[in-house]
Amino acid sequence: MDRAPNEIEALIAQVARLPGLGPRSARRLVLHLIQRRDQSLRPLLAALDRVAQSAQTCTTCGNISTLPVCEICINPKRATAEICVVEDVADLWAMERGGIFGGRYHVLGGTLSALDAVGPEDLRIPELVARVQAEGAREVILALAATVDGQTTAHYIADALAGLDVQVTALAQGVPMGGELDYLDDGTIGAALRARKAV
Amino acid sequence: MDRAPNEIEALIAQVARLPGLGPRSARRLVLHLIQRRDQSLRPLLAALDRVAQSAQTCTTCGNISTLPVCEICINPKRATAEICVVEDVADLWAMERGGIFGGRYHVLGGTLSALDAVGPEDLRIPELVARVQAEGAREVILALAATVDGQTTAHYIADALAGLDVQVTALAQGVPMGGELDYLDDGTIGAALRARKAV
Ligand SMILES: [Zn+2]
Ligand SMILES: [Zn+2]
Repeated sequence: MDRAPNEIEALIAQVARLPGLGPRSARRLVLHLIQRRDQSLRPLLAALDRVAQSAQTCTTCGNISTLPVCEICINPKRATAEICVVEDVADLWAMERGGIFGGRYHVLGGTLSALDAVGPEDLRIPELVARVQAEGAREVILALAATVDGQTTAHYIADALAGLDVQVTALAQGVPMGGELDYLDDGTIGAALRARKAV
Repeated sequence: MDRAPNEIEALIAQVARLPGLGPRSARRLVLHLIQRRDQSLRPLLAALDRVAQSAQTCTTCGNISTLPVCEICINPKRATAEICVVEDVADLWAMERGGIFGGRYHVLGGTLSALDAVGPEDLRIPELVARVQAEGAREVILALAATVDGQTTAHYIADALAGLDVQVTALAQGVPMGGELDYLDDGTIGAALRARKAV
């Protein structure tokens, strides 16, 4: 039996593999795009193309941006004395939506994990230590998930920074056990940040 | 406070407006694409571009295809004597997934609706009547939703075809009340087709 034609079927298959989508939602999405070629498909293509050409990883903090050094790192209003350490860019964006943190970030690119064989050398921990020294940061705020791996990573970083003249704090109150930052509401993140305590 | 940078934020906003997606899933999707530029973003761009350039509405049946007349309409193995009338392309694809119908389709582009002010002239009903006459169809199978609008449309079409030498049938057993075709499993659609009865 015939199904949707080739190029369309190929697109549906590709969309269905994206996170949060499946075969049914992919079919509906592709049909929507085709039936709104000028209002939806072409603008989406243009926006995707712009991002494909311009998105890059900030060489300082690991954020994703359209500049070699991201908007946060080059913003003179952002305090250099505070560095907030996050697991990934989604968590950085979640912190920014909280709208309460005025310092800068450091994206680890993951957490230590015995199970997944992620060691310190796989994360941007040496870069963090170097940054703290070079930038003279006063406080490193660990905004890591309240999971075993997240807390292992937090302790590892606290140890790595122990010899330096920097206070290491962690998000505390408000982060539920087992909770991942990106799933928290903005108010909870703000409360956790305000109530941070020394590790 | 800074958020994600401009082009990226614009893409997220655009993705968030697509059906089945919201702000959170859009952020995760865009981040996924950026972080897998070569494995995911570029192939998706290419596939979208191919579809944007090639997708078109079949001039005969209203299906979406990459040809002026779709693969189903030009397939000599598909019976010309049976025309299955569906509301939209998603329903046509749902029928095809059922894998049981060997005839051809006619996509109405909607159903009659007093509420939304959709009249017969807004649907491809005149084209259906013309097709039945020109192609000498023996049977028109109405595969419309078991909703008020779907059934109103079915009766209107049955009336419009009453003067012609064609049997008008409708999917019967298996379509639950209020159910829309695209949400049914393939077996249910097959059963409804086999048990179709004269209107
Ligand atoms: Zn940066
Ligand atoms: Zn066709």
